[in-house]
Amino acid sequence: MSDGVGFTARVGMIGAGQLARMTQRAAIDLAVRLEVLAATPDDPAVLIGVPYRIGSPLEESAVTGFACGNDVITLDHELVSNDALQRIQQAGTNVVPDPAALRFAQDKLYARTRMAAMGYPVPAFARVDDVGAVEAFASQHGWPVVLKMSTMGYDGRGVEIVGGPDEAEAVLSGDGVWVAEEMLDLSVELAVVVARRPSGPEVVYPVVETVQEGGICRELVMPARVDAELAESAITLAGEVVAAIGAAGIVAVEMFVTNDGALLINEFATRPHNSGHATIEGAVTSQFHNHLRAVLDWPLGSTSLVAPAVAMVNVLGRGTDLAMANLPHALEVEGASVHLYGKEERLGRKIGHVSALGDSPDAALAQARRAAALLGGEAP
Amino acid sequence: MSDGVGFTARVGMIGAGQLARMTQRAAIDLAVRLEVLAATPDDPAVLIGVPYRIGSPLEESAVTGFACGNDVITLDHELVSNDALQRIQQAGTNVVPDPAALRFAQDKLYARTRMAAMGYPVPAFARVDDVGAVEAFASQHGWPVVLKMSTMGYDGRGVEIVGGPDEAEAVLSGDGVWVAEEMLDLSVELAVVVARRPSGPEVVYPVVETVQEGGICRELVMPARVDAELAESAITLAGEVVAAIGAAGIVAVEMFVTNDGALLINEFATRPHNSGHATIEGAVTSQFHNHLRAVLDWPLGSTSLVAPAVAMVNVLGRGTDLAMANLPHALEVEGASVHLYGKEERLGRKIGHVSALGDSPDAALAQARRAAALLGGEAP
Repeated sequence: MSDGVGFTARVGMIGAGQLARMTQRAAIDLAVRLEVLAATPDDPAVLIGVPYRIGSPLEESAVTGFACGNDVITLDHELVSNDALQRIQQAGTNVVPDPAALRFAQDKLYARTRMAAMGYPVPAFARVDDVGAVEAFASQHGWPVVLKMSTMGYDGRGVEIVGGPDEAEAVLSGDGVWVAEEMLDLSVELAVVVARRPSGPEVVYPVVETVQEGGICRELVMPARVDAELAESAITLAGEVVAAIGAAGIVAVEMFVTNDGALLINEFATRPHNSGHATIEGAVTSQFHNHLRAVLDWPLGSTSLVAPAVAMVNVLGRGTDLAMANLPHALEVEGASVHLYGKEERLGRKIGHVSALGDSPDAALAQARRAAALLGGEAP
Repeated sequence: MSDGVGFTARVGMIGAGQLARMTQRAAIDLAVRLEVLAATPDDPAVLIGVPYRIGSPLEESAVTGFACGNDVITLDHELVSNDALQRIQQAGTNVVPDPAALRFAQDKLYARTRMAAMGYPVPAFARVDDVGAVEAFASQHGWPVVLKMSTMGYDGRGVEIVGGPDEAEAVLSGDGVWVAEEMLDLSVELAVVVARRPSGPEVVYPVVETVQEGGICRELVMPARVDAELAESAITLAGEVVAAIGAAGIVAVEMFVTNDGALLINEFATRPHNSGHATIEGAVTSQFHNHLRAVLDWPLGSTSLVAPAVAMVNVLGRGTDLAMANLPHALEVEGASVHLYGKEERLGRKIGHVSALGDSPDAALAQARRAAALLGGEAP
């Protein structure tokens, strides 16, 4: 059977982090052979035995080599050469998401510009190549200004809040294209996770309410604690924009809700996303199952929740191997489901998460927070 | 990290079938390094990348070699040399379940005899070494008589129903110790899945109602459609006997309910069991997670259901690779969760299962049956 019998399909995923690791849970169920393009043999997905090749997804040769033998190529992160993906696609490889859609996740300036042109709501923004451009932007929108690197940022890296020209100057002195964005008074941040097949059909999970700190998602509850009308608007908007950009697989659409009630599109992720982790325990079909089903153009699974609410809290590294050692303490928390990624616990790095079901968002959040705190070293 | 960092614990599982395969889903979450002792490199757990060694669990050298480097040795099946497990245990290896408890799952005569001696309810039985003994048993309990091979039987193999002395003679002419058992009029078959820590604490899942055909579990619903008093008795009985035999890890206790309402202990499985598969989607904590937690003596997870009912239908091989090809059809069934084991689809072999949640056992069963039928080739 080693020549391929035993599997229903072969999926190549570029990147071997926790998203690839959790995708393997779904691949096991569906008898899908997952293969990953890893940076190192210690990557989270490689540690659990997923077949891998080593290579940089920013190098064309690594991507073209990886295409061979897989039914479809998909992604665990966006730091991938779009040119290389276009090249393998032109050569006949099935790439999901389409590189044209992936660009919305890779390039903030492109995404903002295209969304605005299509008439979708986005924060005020402008490309800023020098401090004069930032000052011009600030004269309209005021200080402070948010500066975002257009490409290659993640988990808060490449985002700076500047209070005046001097700070702006310091940020812009580095490489890269920068986008200025108005500093918004936010009432809440939302995310909507969509699964869409290349052939069109899509399903949408209930709206997620996320809490970000320093650009990193700290915790979330699903469904979001917002009124039904706003939730409905967010779901409709997400479904529309995902179809509009032609993405397939899992797509997470992150949104801002301002204090005056405006719903604005922030970012896209065209892959399984942190905001969808609670679907593992919380939904009938997890985002990882639906990602595989979507990229293979198979029928999608139900996105209904199995409880009134589900919460998720990320576990961040403390610089020591605390979480690993504290796992048994965290398992004492009734109803908490712990996921550890096998990563070195470097300071501030996402090394795991905890989910919990509950009769209310607050009840679920309390359980997940408690288990996460125990993993982080709080006394049992 | 390849020298062991990245993992919370190391568990060696003897056997690499679908139970080991599904245990890997849980091992991924808990960052447990699972290793399996496999019969072939095409075994279901090996196909998904679980580290493995090849060897026969009936040979002492394979078992002793496998013990090295793992924190605990546990099982995916019972066809393992008990002597070898005792040997590695005496040499200091942590073996869960204890070989003394495992004997209850390996040796039907021993289990029946010990259960009866401890005062637990079992069907009438007798060791039968020749046809005269079967006739003597039948003179008390009537024909037909059920003959069960005391050891090495599974999935209906080693169970024969004989209508008279000639048929009994033919069965007994082979090797092995045989046990005669009264033919019962059953109202329903139940199973109770227990997770118990070596240090004592245990949790019990809701009672499962199983439907067996030809000795193979075909489908089940949880909770069982029986009155609350009977369910309570079954749960109490299971908890008691598991503690009495000193088993740890997952233990499934299969029970008969006769037409006159008697609750009798049938068989033990001292490992994750088919009757617990519905816990993956149906319970807060799956039997596979609780098996790992139990064998590592970590706190156990909630056994509460996440829906009013959950059903599971096994998918049996049809002799062709139907199920693999039909997977996309089965995924059309709303709310059905499909698990394929990557096994060759030999006739009658368990190659996968489907679970579904529902507002009632019947509703859940209808969805799971429909998806299983589609996997089996029924027209969409």
